[in-house]
Amino acid sequence: MPEVTSPTTSPAPATTTADAAPAPGEYGVGARFTLLPLTDRFVEVITDALAVDRPAGLEVVTDDVSTFVRGTESDVVGYLTAVIARAGRTGVHTVAQVLLSRGCPGEVACEVADGVAFAPERLAPIPATGLRAAAHWSLYPLHDGPDGDHMSAIYAAIDDARERGTLTRSEHFATRLDGDLADVLTTIGDAWLTVGRSVRHVATHATISLNSPSNSSAAGDR
Amino acid sequence: MPEVTSPTTSPAPATTTADAAPAPGEYGVGARFTLLPLTDRFVEVITDALAVDRPAGLEVVTDDVSTFVRGTESDVVGYLTAVIARAGRTGVHTVAQVLLSRGCPGEVACEVADGVAFAPERLAPIPATGLRAAAHWSLYPLHDGPDGDHMSAIYAAIDDARERGTLTRSEHFATRLDGDLADVLTTIGDAWLTVGRSVRHVATHATISLNSPSNSSAAGDR
Repeated sequence: MPEVTSPTTSPAPATTTADAAPAPGEYGVGARFTLLPLTDRFVEVITDALAVDRPAGLEVVTDDVSTFVRGTESDVVGYLTAVIARAGRTGVHTVAQVLLSRGCPGEVACEVADGVAFAPERLAPIPATGLRAAAHWSLYPLHDGPDGDHMSAIYAAIDDARERGTLTRSEHFATRLDGDLADVLTTIGDAWLTVGRSVRHVATHATISLNSPSNSSAAGDR
Repeated sequence: MPEVTSPTTSPAPATTTADAAPAPGEYGVGARFTLLPLTDRFVEVITDALAVDRPAGLEVVTDDVSTFVRGTESDVVGYLTAVIARAGRTGVHTVAQVLLSRGCPGEVACEVADGVAFAPERLAPIPATGLRAAAHWSLYPLHDGPDGDHMSAIYAAIDDARERGTLTRSEHFATRLDGDLADVLTTIGDAWLTVGRSVRHVATHATISLNSPSNSSAAGDR
């Protein structure tokens, strides 16, 4: 990806809310994503997409492999949706690789100790994009200790996807989601928060495809 | 990605080795990857790359989002290297999203119980490709229970990367690797095995970039 250094790059914000919830930067709430338009014009499509309006306080830093985003959960997922949608609206077959992480600021070692997990209830609603997306999605609760109950949270997340209508099926190493891009990203983001209510460190990865020339193999399964 | 159904698709192989090590299919050893050449000719580049020779017994199934690969660790990582290298040799800026998984066959729920972890010592050597790759890499030991010691295995894996010369730096949510594509994939594959010796279920994700038009931001750090 072209290198784009955000003018808002800055140390992690250290504000705290009234109810003593950790600030997103302190808690390591953020994303890495790579936007991949399969076209000779990829530099133009990526640069234009990354330039969508972003909420005040959202940190965005792009290097040659991926783009780092840090901010509140709703701001991060809303920005990802806007960027991917802008690329998708070109009509170019575009794939986004998305990683959401929470609960492990720092790098090799987490800088917050294990303890009470924290996650807001739900993401802010994201308006439908009108773009159909297909995703392979994996969810990783990273919990050490005897009191973990991450599977029940994962089952709850998958039930949420089923109720939302984005769940297509489980596959090896991934869950297949299909639907409007906003619904797919909301499914992934809400699951990340659902598990985050019981497990501090949660990462989730998704490969999200738009405008594929292949017939969707999901069509017959819905 | 174009849909390509492998003629070798078949149920998981059920062979066992003399020392009662679990067969790769039984133990859930495999990968999902998406190959993304940023060119108008992406169908041609992907189709040609996926057609590299593959070892007997390696299962490869491509759908519109990703390609599933199942077989021995060395066969899986060797095949990924060959496919990504073939695309990279076109000179097109190409990104591969790679997921390696072990210890959790099945889909939503793992079909093997927690217990003794198993991993072979090292991958078979992969010849240098002559292609420079940059990667953002994340490693996830998924261990429930009080006896986990996954961090020491992760530190060992990072030390291995440093000794191999592929470690560039830790970044938020990912480790940056640079080097010959074969060395980068061997670093990732060996780490997956290193952690797999103490943790049954291990997943690792990497976004691997070749032929980027951006100057590598790593050059000054090595």
